[in-house]
Amino acid sequence: MNISIIAIGTELLIGQVIDTNSGDIARKFAPHGWRVNDVQVVDDDAYQITRAIERAFESSDVVITTGGLGPTKDDITKSTLRDYFGGEMQEDPSVLENIKRVFEKRGLTLNALTAQQAVVPTSCKVIQNTVGTAPIMWFEKDSKVLVSMPGVPFETREMLDSAVIPALLDRFKSDVNIEHRCVLVTGYTESLLAMTIAKWEDALPSFLHLAYLPKPGLVRLRIDGVHHDKDILINEIDRQHKQLCDMLGDHVLCDRDTLIEALLIDELRARGMSLSTAESCTGGNIAHVLTEIPGCSDIFNGGLVAYSNQVKENILGVSAATLERHGAVSEEVVKEMVTGACKALNTDCAVATSGIAGPGGGTAEKPVGTVCIGVKTPDTIFTNTYHFPGTRQRVIERATMTAIVKAIELIRNISI
Amino acid sequence: MNISIIAIGTELLIGQVIDTNSGDIARKFAPHGWRVNDVQVVDDDAYQITRAIERAFESSDVVITTGGLGPTKDDITKSTLRDYFGGEMQEDPSVLENIKRVFEKRGLTLNALTAQQAVVPTSCKVIQNTVGTAPIMWFEKDSKVLVSMPGVPFETREMLDSAVIPALLDRFKSDVNIEHRCVLVTGYTESLLAMTIAKWEDALPSFLHLAYLPKPGLVRLRIDGVHHDKDILINEIDRQHKQLCDMLGDHVLCDRDTLIEALLIDELRARGMSLSTAESCTGGNIAHVLTEIPGCSDIFNGGLVAYSNQVKENILGVSAATLERHGAVSEEVVKEMVTGACKALNTDCAVATSGIAGPGGGTAEKPVGTVCIGVKTPDTIFTNTYHFPGTRQRVIERATMTAIVKAIELIRNISI
Repeated sequence: MNISIIAIGTELLIGQVIDTNSGDIARKFAPHGWRVNDVQVVDDDAYQITRAIERAFESSDVVITTGGLGPTKDDITKSTLRDYFGGEMQEDPSVLENIKRVFEKRGLTLNALTAQQAVVPTSCKVIQNTVGTAPIMWFEKDSKVLVSMPGVPFETREMLDSAVIPALLDRFKSDVNIEHRCVLVTGYTESLLAMTIAKWEDALPSFLHLAYLPKPGLVRLRIDGVHHDKDILINEIDRQHKQLCDMLGDHVLCDRDTLIEALLIDELRARGMSLSTAESCTGGNIAHVLTEIPGCSDIFNGGLVAYSNQVKENILGVSAATLERHGAVSEEVVKEMVTGACKALNTDCAVATSGIAGPGGGTAEKPVGTVCIGVKTPDTIFTNTYHFPGTRQRVIERATMTAIVKAIELIRNISI
Repeated sequence: MNISIIAIGTELLIGQVIDTNSGDIARKFAPHGWRVNDVQVVDDDAYQITRAIERAFESSDVVITTGGLGPTKDDITKSTLRDYFGGEMQEDPSVLENIKRVFEKRGLTLNALTAQQAVVPTSCKVIQNTVGTAPIMWFEKDSKVLVSMPGVPFETREMLDSAVIPALLDRFKSDVNIEHRCVLVTGYTESLLAMTIAKWEDALPSFLHLAYLPKPGLVRLRIDGVHHDKDILINEIDRQHKQLCDMLGDHVLCDRDTLIEALLIDELRARGMSLSTAESCTGGNIAHVLTEIPGCSDIFNGGLVAYSNQVKENILGVSAATLERHGAVSEEVVKEMVTGACKALNTDCAVATSGIAGPGGGTAEKPVGTVCIGVKTPDTIFTNTYHFPGTRQRVIERATMTAIVKAIELIRNISI
């Protein structure tokens, strides 16, 4: 089944808000064998919305729109949908009840503008939005379905899972199977990896396709398969996936799609080991990505953002002499940072970063992008110096990813 | 001038990568009065790419495509553009030179697959990509321009600034002026805010338009203006902007568009004060967003991610009795955390968080989403308990934003 998405909102087109809903929709439908055919991002403008709907129905039987349903004046999606699908605007008492319930839960008093959200076209079937006030509207025309969803990412995610996906699966039956297999590969550029596996890739059967998804310090390879016979598809995709992993050997960081921070947590947990962080140039980002994973608290005691030398000395016990002799951005300092973090935060392992994220602060000897990374495990202390290209954000991101990948590799060497 | 964007790549449609390029393009063109009319996200598929180009040229004289230019097989943008604009594929020696230079700088050896990136259609004019290997291709047809740019966000941003925007401004002259003014508003829901300013909004002249951009704990109001006479536009948009700010009074956190973390840094810097962080449930995210701002090191000494009680006690000096009596998620504990952070990290001010981000860990008394926030300034210690709805990520984000907004409000009360 093909889906076309229409993301509605001026804020998306002027770059003040990034459309994350379309990716969420794609990821949530994929396990059911449904795929997103195209995404159109359009203005809060009746002509543009109508044209986008017409175009979307050219390629897909299911169209999902997001956004343009807020109570304020810049939102005209609802009236445009009424014009397209027909019917009258009418207050739906069940929607009004739902809005009152949501407002009560949030401790707010209902006002007239929000109450207007209960007015919907008579041509739609309403799906109650249990986590927000904008009702979800289901329209049908010529056996095709359009579902209008809110723009708030959290509401869209919740309602896809609890109501919209089940209802669409019930309405349409899929006759084709789709499978994906992933491999996370380190130590290759995208092009060198492509040359290394070219022969294998050329020999793939026509129903399997390989995609390259480079991320900082990592290439994600994804095998996509489409076949009417589920057994044939799964046997072949699994066989090819295994061949690919065998071929890449130690370069395979993981043979499935996962966040590398979740992988690090899994490896630590499997060994009953704890971790702390001591971050200078990454400024708390390593701790942040780790603590976004639910349940990380059993392996993560805490971390220190040691931006000033004073903090490195006082809390991590980095010696003033080392800072003086080698400078804050040095392998000697990150070595003392990981040792100090394990002691101060009472953990088995630690990761540390010290570098120059830029745009200022670079020197001829240590230009912007220079980052020293240290990892301590009960077995060993690893340190290395890297040179990451790009902006401040990019250097922080690369340093974060590199530190996590290195920690995974070292912790894996420790037997469970 | 209108731009249509086509973002190319299967990875965007299956939700493995989020399209941030379109927002970057919109933000970078806006100051020149150019606007993005629509965005289409399509597969690495010749038919889809061609159809998207045809549709884009219906609405815009300038089309920018991003992505689909990697050296690997899933990228077919280049051949599709050749088919659409005509010409032959031919190696461009200047592109090959550029690729060699980029590879040398990165310490890599050129391979055959990457060298293929130097093969371009004879129908295009090449703009050298100084920060990557995929050449930027400029095509013209019927007085309309298509520029094909890389998918790597960093390369696209760099090359827009240094080459593509200057070249497009030179090629087209704009005859209309566009201006935006922003106000960041706290303490209102979107709908209550809309009702409060409805009368003012209704009286806006037809060339000014108001947009509501709600973010966690904040509503961003943006006045968009379009007029042929620049003086009239600027006088009126500034007048209305001032009226709006006056009307909202203390609810105005800032009268221009900025990141609130940058605003906090500015307020601290203006007073010569320093800040530290002591984070439990936000897990380093406050430190992370602050340290993404260049030059933050003069006000930010460092922070502690105090995930375990042990770390709260040992480094921040939170008393075991307080933890025992009130629990880690309590205003009493965040009060001791900010005091301890100021002492341990030697700062004038501190922010602290302790809460239950979920999905596990909630109780009847302290459900998931309960977050205690503390802010210490030389004048005062503020603490409060909040209940944030939504997922783990959302609770972390809301708590981060709320702590920063509260810190701004308190620090502003201190005279410069």
